[in-house]
Amino acid sequence: MLDFSFSTEQETMRRLFRDFAESVLLPRYREWDAKEEFPWEQWNRMAEIGLTGMTISEQYGGAGMGYVEAGIAAEEVGRGDFNCAYAVILNGLVGEILERHGGDRVKKEFLLPMAKGEKLIALALTEPGTGSDAAAIKTTAVREGDHYIIAGEKSGISLATVAHAAVVFAKTDPEQRSRGVTAFLVPLDAPGVARSAYQDMGNRPIGRGSLFFDRVEIPLEYRVGDEGQGFYGAMNGFDFSRVLIALQCIGAAEKTLEETVEYVRQRQAFGKPLAAFEGVSFPIAEHHAKLEMARWYGYRALWLRDENLPHTTEAAACKWLGPKLAAEAIHDCLLLHGHYGYTRDLPIEQRLRDVIGLEIGDGTAHTQKIVIGREVIGREFRPY
Amino acid sequence: MLDFSFSTEQETMRRLFRDFAESVLLPRYREWDAKEEFPWEQWNRMAEIGLTGMTISEQYGGAGMGYVEAGIAAEEVGRGDFNCAYAVILNGLVGEILERHGGDRVKKEFLLPMAKGEKLIALALTEPGTGSDAAAIKTTAVREGDHYIIAGEKSGISLATVAHAAVVFAKTDPEQRSRGVTAFLVPLDAPGVARSAYQDMGNRPIGRGSLFFDRVEIPLEYRVGDEGQGFYGAMNGFDFSRVLIALQCIGAAEKTLEETVEYVRQRQAFGKPLAAFEGVSFPIAEHHAKLEMARWYGYRALWLRDENLPHTTEAAACKWLGPKLAAEAIHDCLLLHGHYGYTRDLPIEQRLRDVIGLEIGDGTAHTQKIVIGREVIGREFRPY
Amino acid sequence: MLDFSFSTEQETMRRLFRDFAESVLLPRYREWDAKEEFPWEQWNRMAEIGLTGMTISEQYGGAGMGYVEAGIAAEEVGRGDFNCAYAVILNGLVGEILERHGGDRVKKEFLLPMAKGEKLIALALTEPGTGSDAAAIKTTAVREGDHYIIAGEKSGISLATVAHAAVVFAKTDPEQRSRGVTAFLVPLDAPGVARSAYQDMGNRPIGRGSLFFDRVEIPLEYRVGDEGQGFYGAMNGFDFSRVLIALQCIGAAEKTLEETVEYVRQRQAFGKPLAAFEGVSFPIAEHHAKLEMARWYGYRALWLRDENLPHTTEAAACKWLGPKLAAEAIHDCLLLHGHYGYTRDLPIEQRLRDVIGLEIGDGTAHTQKIVIGREVIGREFRPY
Amino acid sequence: MLDFSFSTEQETMRRLFRDFAESVLLPRYREWDAKEEFPWEQWNRMAEIGLTGMTISEQYGGAGMGYVEAGIAAEEVGRGDFNCAYAVILNGLVGEILERHGGDRVKKEFLLPMAKGEKLIALALTEPGTGSDAAAIKTTAVREGDHYIIAGEKSGISLATVAHAAVVFAKTDPEQRSRGVTAFLVPLDAPGVARSAYQDMGNRPIGRGSLFFDRVEIPLEYRVGDEGQGFYGAMNGFDFSRVLIALQCIGAAEKTLEETVEYVRQRQAFGKPLAAFEGVSFPIAEHHAKLEMARWYGYRALWLRDENLPHTTEAAACKWLGPKLAAEAIHDCLLLHGHYGYTRDLPIEQRLRDVIGLEIGDGTAHTQKIVIGREVIGREFRPY
Repeated sequence: MLDFSFSTEQETMRRLFRDFAESVLLPRYREWDAKEEFPWEQWNRMAEIGLTGMTISEQYGGAGMGYVEAGIAAEEVGRGDFNCAYAVILNGLVGEILERHGGDRVKKEFLLPMAKGEKLIALALTEPGTGSDAAAIKTTAVREGDHYIIAGEKSGISLATVAHAAVVFAKTDPEQRSRGVTAFLVPLDAPGVARSAYQDMGNRPIGRGSLFFDRVEIPLEYRVGDEGQGFYGAMNGFDFSRVLIALQCIGAAEKTLEETVEYVRQRQAFGKPLAAFEGVSFPIAEHHAKLEMARWYGYRALWLRDENLPHTTEAAACKWLGPKLAAEAIHDCLLLHGHYGYTRDLPIEQRLRDVIGLEIGDGTAHTQKIVIGREVIGREFRPY
Repeated sequence: MLDFSFSTEQETMRRLFRDFAESVLLPRYREWDAKEEFPWEQWNRMAEIGLTGMTISEQYGGAGMGYVEAGIAAEEVGRGDFNCAYAVILNGLVGEILERHGGDRVKKEFLLPMAKGEKLIALALTEPGTGSDAAAIKTTAVREGDHYIIAGEKSGISLATVAHAAVVFAKTDPEQRSRGVTAFLVPLDAPGVARSAYQDMGNRPIGRGSLFFDRVEIPLEYRVGDEGQGFYGAMNGFDFSRVLIALQCIGAAEKTLEETVEYVRQRQAFGKPLAAFEGVSFPIAEHHAKLEMARWYGYRALWLRDENLPHTTEAAACKWLGPKLAAEAIHDCLLLHGHYGYTRDLPIEQRLRDVIGLEIGDGTAHTQKIVIGREVIGREFRPY
Repeated sequence: MLDFSFSTEQETMRRLFRDFAESVLLPRYREWDAKEEFPWEQWNRMAEIGLTGMTISEQYGGAGMGYVEAGIAAEEVGRGDFNCAYAVILNGLVGEILERHGGDRVKKEFLLPMAKGEKLIALALTEPGTGSDAAAIKTTAVREGDHYIIAGEKSGISLATVAHAAVVFAKTDPEQRSRGVTAFLVPLDAPGVARSAYQDMGNRPIGRGSLFFDRVEIPLEYRVGDEGQGFYGAMNGFDFSRVLIALQCIGAAEKTLEETVEYVRQRQAFGKPLAAFEGVSFPIAEHHAKLEMARWYGYRALWLRDENLPHTTEAAACKWLGPKLAAEAIHDCLLLHGHYGYTRDLPIEQRLRDVIGLEIGDGTAHTQKIVIGREVIGREFRPY
Repeated sequence: MLDFSFSTEQETMRRLFRDFAESVLLPRYREWDAKEEFPWEQWNRMAEIGLTGMTISEQYGGAGMGYVEAGIAAEEVGRGDFNCAYAVILNGLVGEILERHGGDRVKKEFLLPMAKGEKLIALALTEPGTGSDAAAIKTTAVREGDHYIIAGEKSGISLATVAHAAVVFAKTDPEQRSRGVTAFLVPLDAPGVARSAYQDMGNRPIGRGSLFFDRVEIPLEYRVGDEGQGFYGAMNGFDFSRVLIALQCIGAAEKTLEETVEYVRQRQAFGKPLAAFEGVSFPIAEHHAKLEMARWYGYRALWLRDENLPHTTEAAACKWLGPKLAAEAIHDCLLLHGHYGYTRDLPIEQRLRDVIGLEIGDGTAHTQKIVIGREVIGREFRPY
């Protein structure tokens, strides 16, 4: 039976996160970008309200949120600090993978401190030359006695320069494509690990970079899930993180829209408020309508996941349209502020830079349309 | 608590209407357009399954559907015959107004036969020179003894040439704007009534035209609601019909998309199915994603109405984006069929012509953006 | 040295054609659509001012226009009667092919009467199942003694039902792709020729349909150009007709925009002209700007052709954007008229229907983007 | 007579500027952004090839270029270093104003060193609270004996922090709107002048900021043009700079498109070059077509200016569409590079940030559409 209302508990959670995002995160949003530094102070405060381990069960110190609640967290934190929201999502994604597939030792050594905000764990899938083609990765994991030896290079990894460990996807059977991929927990202080940082347009506090594994030895127990199961785990995780990213972007765009409404109400031109001009107000009305649609569609996808129903197409649609509509809205809001919106005094230009990063991360529009096309059209659609 | 599932009863209803639409309505969709004739045969069959009086309570012979169910009807009938869907919606809108505000006599003489599919009743609001400015109408209703005398002209009225009666909005107090408007039931066979038909691009079976009232006398009991309440009743009704129109358009577009998927799977070019080209499949994937978002947003608006919650902004957003996204999808699908899509052998070109009619009816994009802008921006937005 | 002015002679020509289009063609534009009849009366009058043989040299009774002049004709006639403009373009295209490649007999028997407006000659390239893949045609031409025997089926042929003859492309060497294609002049009253008419959304006076050749015998002298040269001649011709089609569409859109400006200046809402609303005037300003850009780009392509410089990419760009921008402008103009624009009292709805036909004819957007992509990207772009 | 070819001299100039832009400017484009520093080294080298005084006549040490040549300079320099191009344009604009309206002393003291690249002169029109409404400025210039006393504040001024002087627009008659505005040359080292720098999203080497004039005394001879003529001179200048800005943006976008073509040709995915996917190549083809159209329209506007023909509408259309199409193309190109395009290793992200600055500078889309609307619609369009 259709019901478009959140539960009282969810509404309380939303209010809590919104207040926190606006009063604690937003005032320092620009600061971490300028310093290109992970917001550890904020992270500690986020740990207090369950945001660092949102999907992790209470047993491992997490908040045990359902998927819809995770969406609320992504949207609301996105209103305050886009990059904090991204860390929350990445943590949520990795937390889920570790809890579902990790062994006891991994859970104790990594999941628990993760939930407490003491450890950050990156997800290391993509490699130079294999953006969207995850099954083509070349990093290898070879079993030698009671260890695996990881060798290879990962690129475009969020949190690469700040994380304590990474879930690394490597081929245990290099002859196979997707069925040869296995996941491993690799501490980033292990001998043989090197990191390099990127200079990105945005998402700077997120410390994106490359990870290099020069015959890194890890215990068998650090394998996450069975051999050959890594690819499917990752893909399943994307169905989740793609929706959260959409909501995170929509949150940032809706906050920008609200700020813009405030601005055009105050600012005068030709003797009346800017808001009086349809050329100003119509774009705002249009973006509002589109973002609202995308937003509810996002919650629908999360509800499907909560209900254990298929949602791969929905997740791809969210990942395509969420960041895209958000980028368009923020870009227009920037212009509606005139030159003022172009300065780093306001958070708008940073939001645009940050959102563009997630038009790419977790799969570009091209990738998402392939996913949707496969579902809608079937096997006659063969892009490659 | 969020729930994006329809009830079993609603799903059954959807299946019933879809089967009916595809097996009974679609095969003759083009026929009524070619003949420019109201589909009475279909209307009678629709009466049998409750579509002619969907919002009317069982007490008056209707199906007593809630708003969400009405949305299901609009969407599914829209897949088969766009103009039948429009008649269903108009009937649903008028039915609701008469049941809420009409007196006993009106209900007995008009509501009952309407529900049975025996009478069609038009809604006559707009006038020459007052498209979106409903409060500026000039038609007057003057009380003389136990009658009202209606005088004026209504234009752009759907069903004008085929309806048995019309709910006519007239000024009982010409000094006032919205507060001077009252609704009346006017039988169209009354002395003094004249009609003229339009030659429209589409929606031809709907018999759009003008109504002329040359001192038409109607009994006091044909007043619908109190004096001065007509405008608000009409506006409240639009919050309903605007969403239904969106779903009707989305239904037509989704059916077209499915037909197009079928076509591009079969049709070969350069040795492979058209579907193999991203230039063909990506537009399909894009339209699918956008229509799905708009569709769920439509059901959300109807749920709000079912819950007696405000939904004016949502209805305007639906009315703007639903017909627009549908027209864009259908236009692209037509082109993806190459010249074949341009012929009247397929229903696509008619759907495009028909949908464009509802980019206008019940308020153009301009009107909807004013409604949204007012809500989002507030009183600083003053378009006029 | 850059010069964006037309010569005095060209300006005179433009004025002549514009006056003719607005005073003679426009008043009856709707009539031929309603009757689904080729406008022979107009055609005769067009013959008097050189429009029926615009590209044909004076030697054969034509007007001997250059390509830029042909563009002026296409644009200006497009303002008055879109379908007349299309006949002018088709005639211009066929005239050029016959004059360049036809033998004496063909020129005498067909080119001359064509120029006088006495004969219409269709161009028959596409076949069922080979829309954009012209090299895959299956119609054959087999030499038997002093005749060729033509056998096959052509579909989607403009003027199919009204032309006196057709330039038919057939395989003289079915083993080859493009190099096996040869052009022939086939009188459509020859034994073995059959025609069928389509019921199209628009372009109705153009008599689009299929042509069937059941072992049709034609003299050797009716071959147009050498064996195996037909494909290249056709492709070269498209570089011309694609630009003319763009200008024809732009002409129709600019006329619609002018009519819309007139309308929104007069029409009042909320106590001021519609034109006073930015929500009305901005779309007009936007379409004006885009159409002007596309228009000048069209003349640039024709100038390149006049100068014997390559212009295939430019022609494809024109063919993609011209009809597309025109359709968007006309669609918006229709909506800006409210319900009035939706009626067949105004020419707008027909223009939209007609322009959509040329979003398809001479190659859809998909085809044009492949042409542009090949040029801009090179051999790494391999769509098939 | 139409001619779309550049003269040999213009082509030589284009080659010179392109080589210079790609070999000298592009390699250090990012450097000045990172350092937020005006590129004086480059400026000196640009002086050698006439770019610092392009519109100034040879008599005053300039290159004496026509408007079309100035367009070539803007486009080509824009390919190498967007901010250098902007300085060239600003210099070109100020140079023209000073040469047309400045007295001998101004020309000797400022125009000459400007042309040599020794002095930069800003244009100071906008004020806090008067973005697009230039006639509403509040800065005053009061004549006292043989001096004017300038008092007020200018905001959003390009080069504010690096220029040696500024052409300041001030009210000599505060009772009047546009007719009260006069232009003055104000040395920025004069007593009473203060500056503040902005932290902008892009255009960082351009040193945008505010200028404060606290009763700054300047000699009468520093008045530029007659009293009350300043507004018209500025507006006339915008008709020029708006087109140059469009070409500058288009140059940056075309260079980005070329780099992207190179990238998608090399980069492999799923066993073939990215370029093989229509989902990759079609956006490139589309942006190419649109940019080419906008580009030629820009040269048309400059030709009109060279011919002393009206071009206000054309300039506004260029200023609206040039930066907009460029921003869209660059944004898409960034995404087509995947994460690589998001790094500061490539110039793409900076180009996007820089171009957005000129979606605002010299008038936003809103302003340009008002200009076009006024021309196309006339006095019934009254946005304020």
